Amino acid sequence: MGTTEVTAPEGTPFIEINREFDAPPALVYRAYTEPELLKQWLGPRKYEMVVERWDVREGGAWRYEHRDDAGNAWAFHGVFHSVARDTMVQTFEFEGAPGHVSLEKVVFEDLGNGRTAVRNHSVYQSIEARDAMVQSGMAEGVTEGYERLDELLAQLSVPAGR
Amino acid sequence: MGTTEVTAPEGTPFIEINREFDAPPALVYRAYTEPELLKQWLGPRKYEMVVERWDVREGGAWRYEHRDDAGNAWAFHGVFHSVARDTMVQTFEFEGAPGHVSLEKVVFEDLGNGRTAVRNHSVYQSIEARDAMVQSGMAEGVTEGYERLDELLAQLSVPAGR
Repeated sequence: MGTTEVTAPEGTPFIEINREFDAPPALVYRAYTEPELLKQWLGPRKYEMVVERWDVREGGAWRYEHRDDAGNAWAFHGVFHSVARDTMVQTFEFEGAPGHVSLEKVVFEDLGNGRTAVRNHSVYQSIEARDAMVQSGMAEGVTEGYERLDELLAQLSVPAGR
Repeated sequence: MGTTEVTAPEGTPFIEINREFDAPPALVYRAYTEPELLKQWLGPRKYEMVVERWDVREGGAWRYEHRDDAGNAWAFHGVFHSVARDTMVQTFEFEGAPGHVSLEKVVFEDLGNGRTAVRNHSVYQSIEARDAMVQSGMAEGVTEGYERLDELLAQLSVPAGR
């Protein structure tokens, strides 16, 4: 299993998240771009993930909700600035803190031997907004989500018919 | 005439641009959102401004070019994350430096007495990319563009028939 590295340098509005996966870039890309796959891994296990829109193209909008058993929901939305096989750039807004938007870049780096490094770079509109995101427990949610992605990629890697 | 204040704090990826105009918010909003008006003020006077797309809505894409007499062109594009009467949030990419995207917020603040403050807040994906934008002479282009916007708003404020 890989290790999720989360870096949020003091006094900057940046968050870096790096993680390696035992799967080729094309498969990781599918897990990021197909809503039926996305909802199986993005976020903590305890939430139901409801993908309302995930329109992966320039100008395409996205929106999803994390729901718990008690009927609470946390919604997020944004738009895709650009989408390529190796890089996606999109905006991100948590609807619980409306008006605070961040810009996220996700790079899929081919490590060879069927392995991929996923490199996330996010920038917030203020250092305070970045700090609030870090303090929200974001790192734990991302780490758990990436463990689920590991499991999903392992499943998808099994040739059909086995 | 107003004064354009450009602030780019050392060691941050931010640029702030503030400017006041002798026109009500609704008129300034029109000048920002209608392509036929936009092309009359955005950027230095020496360039022809060609607006290819300016689709002001969530997920709407935009692209324009500045062209000089020698046949050179500088193109920019992005998408709108959100659009409201008092705030627009959009991505921005100069095609001469592809892959470097910034996130821009424009706020139209009603100062009363038919005056408006326009507050721009941009954040870049790195301090280096922000510094490169500052060094490109961006402030001069913005300042000249806002002088042109002053002139356009004065024209638009004249009641029809005069």
